[in-house]
Amino acid sequence: MVRSLRGVLPGEDIIYLGDTARVPYGSKSQRFLLERGVKLVLIACNTASATALPALAAASPVPVIGAVEPGAASALAATANGHIGVIGTLATVRSGAYAQAIAARDPSAALTALACPLLVPLAEEGWTDDEVAALVARRYLSELFVRDPQIDTLVLGCTHYPLLRGVLERAAAELTGRRVAVVDSATAMAEAARGAVAAQNAATGGADAGASASAGTGAAANRRGAAGRLDCFATDTSRFDEVAPRFLGEPLTGFELVDL
Amino acid sequence: MVRSLRGVLPGEDIIYLGDTARVPYGSKSQRFLLERGVKLVLIACNTASATALPALAAASPVPVIGAVEPGAASALAATANGHIGVIGTLATVRSGAYAQAIAARDPSAALTALACPLLVPLAEEGWTDDEVAALVARRYLSELFVRDPQIDTLVLGCTHYPLLRGVLERAAAELTGRRVAVVDSATAMAEAARGAVAAQNAATGGADAGASASAGTGAAANRRGAAGRLDCFATDTSRFDEVAPRFLGEPLTGFELVDL
Repeated sequence: MVRSLRGVLPGEDIIYLGDTARVPYGSKSQRFLLERGVKLVLIACNTASATALPALAAASPVPVIGAVEPGAASALAATANGHIGVIGTLATVRSGAYAQAIAARDPSAALTALACPLLVPLAEEGWTDDEVAALVARRYLSELFVRDPQIDTLVLGCTHYPLLRGVLERAAAELTGRRVAVVDSATAMAEAARGAVAAQNAATGGADAGASASAGTGAAANRRGAAGRLDCFATDTSRFDEVAPRFLGEPLTGFELVDL
Repeated sequence: MVRSLRGVLPGEDIIYLGDTARVPYGSKSQRFLLERGVKLVLIACNTASATALPALAAASPVPVIGAVEPGAASALAATANGHIGVIGTLATVRSGAYAQAIAARDPSAALTALACPLLVPLAEEGWTDDEVAALVARRYLSELFVRDPQIDTLVLGCTHYPLLRGVLERAAAELTGRRVAVVDSATAMAEAARGAVAAQNAATGGADAGASASAGTGAAANRRGAAGRLDCFATDTSRFDEVAPRFLGEPLTGFELVDL
């Protein structure tokens, strides 16, 4: 998520809070970011977005962007036949959030959602391009394509899954013998953040306003010209230093342990 | 855990509370069980035992049995050369609880602990005896035996892992070419519970006292003669009905959803 966000908003400061002591994230993470003066909050976790976005948005004085709405919009833009598959955590799938978001935009679209509980630990272990990852990807996607053989678009409905994009794409191609579009909710969310920042800048009279984005969460203060800062915080040291660089897409220069 | 407990204490009533809304379990689970008059609490989760046992025991008027101490004692009883391997969740391994428990009993023992984050989702998916399970078991144990090639005893330091015992035993045998003793913390804990119940019965003047055991937790009231009851409660319906029977070792005749 941070990687995508840095790509589309390179000049913005980002405060990334990995509230790993309390997965999925919630109101304490948001308060932490708001206290730091962010002007945009990103819930960089599909599970938290699927289960807590309305509550978090209602309690926030700044715009809150979740992962599900941008992911659903991107999937509808990508599909040719309206048959969409979503993979995510059990909680995301059980929430029905993608089904609702897609039905609200296009009631004729056919959504098939499948929980894939092994994918998060695979991504966290860094087992992303090996025999185990390939077997697991194939097993889950095979179940998905049995449920709807016409799926032409697959949504990676968890911010961990882009690390497994390669094996998932290969498995989808092997299983179907055709191209399946893969939509990454993190990329979709970063694009939504860019739109929100542009709207804020327009409203406040220009680029001086800078931007804040909060991810899994992150955020930022004003800035101009130079590359944005990335400040990382975590609520639990377990593996943060080991796992975070894989997700950030850049070396972790340090992080601060915080107790919310 | 319940399966082991039912095996060694068939006449005892058990209240099983799967506090799946709040993993790992803690003080709210314990309060729920104590309010039901249990006389023994089992923390049927290594992660909760490793991280919260002292706090839970201090707050309890009845004996509290965790998974780590019985597991450590069983491992020391099983090992011939003092080289013990423990596999568990990241939090259990990070806690150092097994290392402490084993060192306290035998400072000369050599313990190697490895976190195996994929094993819980494998067990919950029911992928316990297939190609994925075999590959994952082999990869983790291969890392363990690289760290200490002399390990002769492997502790399943997570109450999910007995479901994977077959693939773990086979992987250990293939990797070492010799027999590796496998110690199951759930079995060790059930034995400890039997001892605690016997001690309570002796203190209160006999079998009339019955027993309560709480697991992940569970508990019980008095009973004589007939088979004990098993009452199941869960704090989150997600998959409890699907996953629980695999762990209980008996069909789930129903469970009650509770909000702690």
